[in-house]
Amino acid sequence: MKRVEHIGIAVSDLEAAEALYTRLLQVAPYKHEEVAGEQVNTAFFRVDDTKIELLQSTDPEGVIARFIAKRGAGIHHIAFEVKDIVSEMERLRNEGFHLLSEAPKIGADNKLVCFVHPKDTQGVLIELCQERDSLI
Amino acid sequence: MKRVEHIGIAVSDLEAAEALYTRLLQVAPYKHEEVAGEQVNTAFFRVDDTKIELLQSTDPEGVIARFIAKRGAGIHHIAFEVKDIVSEMERLRNEGFHLLSEAPKIGADNKLVCFVHPKDTQGVLIELCQERDSLI
Repeated sequence: MKRVEHIGIAVSDLEAAEALYTRLLQVAPYKHEEVAGEQVNTAFFRVDDTKIELLQSTDPEGVIARFIAKRGAGIHHIAFEVKDIVSEMERLRNEGFHLLSEAPKIGADNKLVCFVHPKDTQGVLIELCQERDSLI
Repeated sequence: MKRVEHIGIAVSDLEAAEALYTRLLQVAPYKHEEVAGEQVNTAFFRVDDTKIELLQSTDPEGVIARFIAKRGAGIHHIAFEVKDIVSEMERLRNEGFHLLSEAPKIGADNKLVCFVHPKDTQGVLIELCQERDSLI
């Protein structure tokens, strides 16, 4: 794991959350992006070299909507940048971790992503991510 | 807010969680510390310049024990390093945020800390922290 690339926060009202985090962090979001595959609208803030990603579900049955229904709005995941997502997935499988997809998926922010099952990480949803441009 | 200084994770079994995060992050904890005032035992990992803090309650009625009873083990807080915690607390109060203490408290890892009420941040517990050695 190279570094904490971003922290994902599940929100029910993206516009209100953006206003709130703009006041809290004293910086405006630098990007908005819809990730159709994950059924989310996102807003990204940058604090030094870590990003804060606000996630609002676009579907009442989407993963973020279900998270909020179960646990309330709040921190959803920690994303670690990795150098080579395929080999890191292989390493974690060999360590006994269960991954939520067989292969990397295309996520927000031009990334290949994969999630580790939170049952294996004491309730913490861990994302691995690799910049797609870093692929040869 | 200067940067994400650490991410706090509430765990019910610190020893098991340490073994797990050592395998996940491929690094051993560099420090253990008991914070009597917060009723926690902690273990710290470093990933690049961000720390991962595992927190186990030392008291069944402690704040971490109550968090786990309510929501399960998982991500507990995000800590942002600030340059001047007193002036940042004042700024946030003026922005309408409610703080969990009137003045900074002594936290883990040689820090002065203050928490923002999660009701004001869509369910996210935000810590402000400042290295005590940075004080004149």
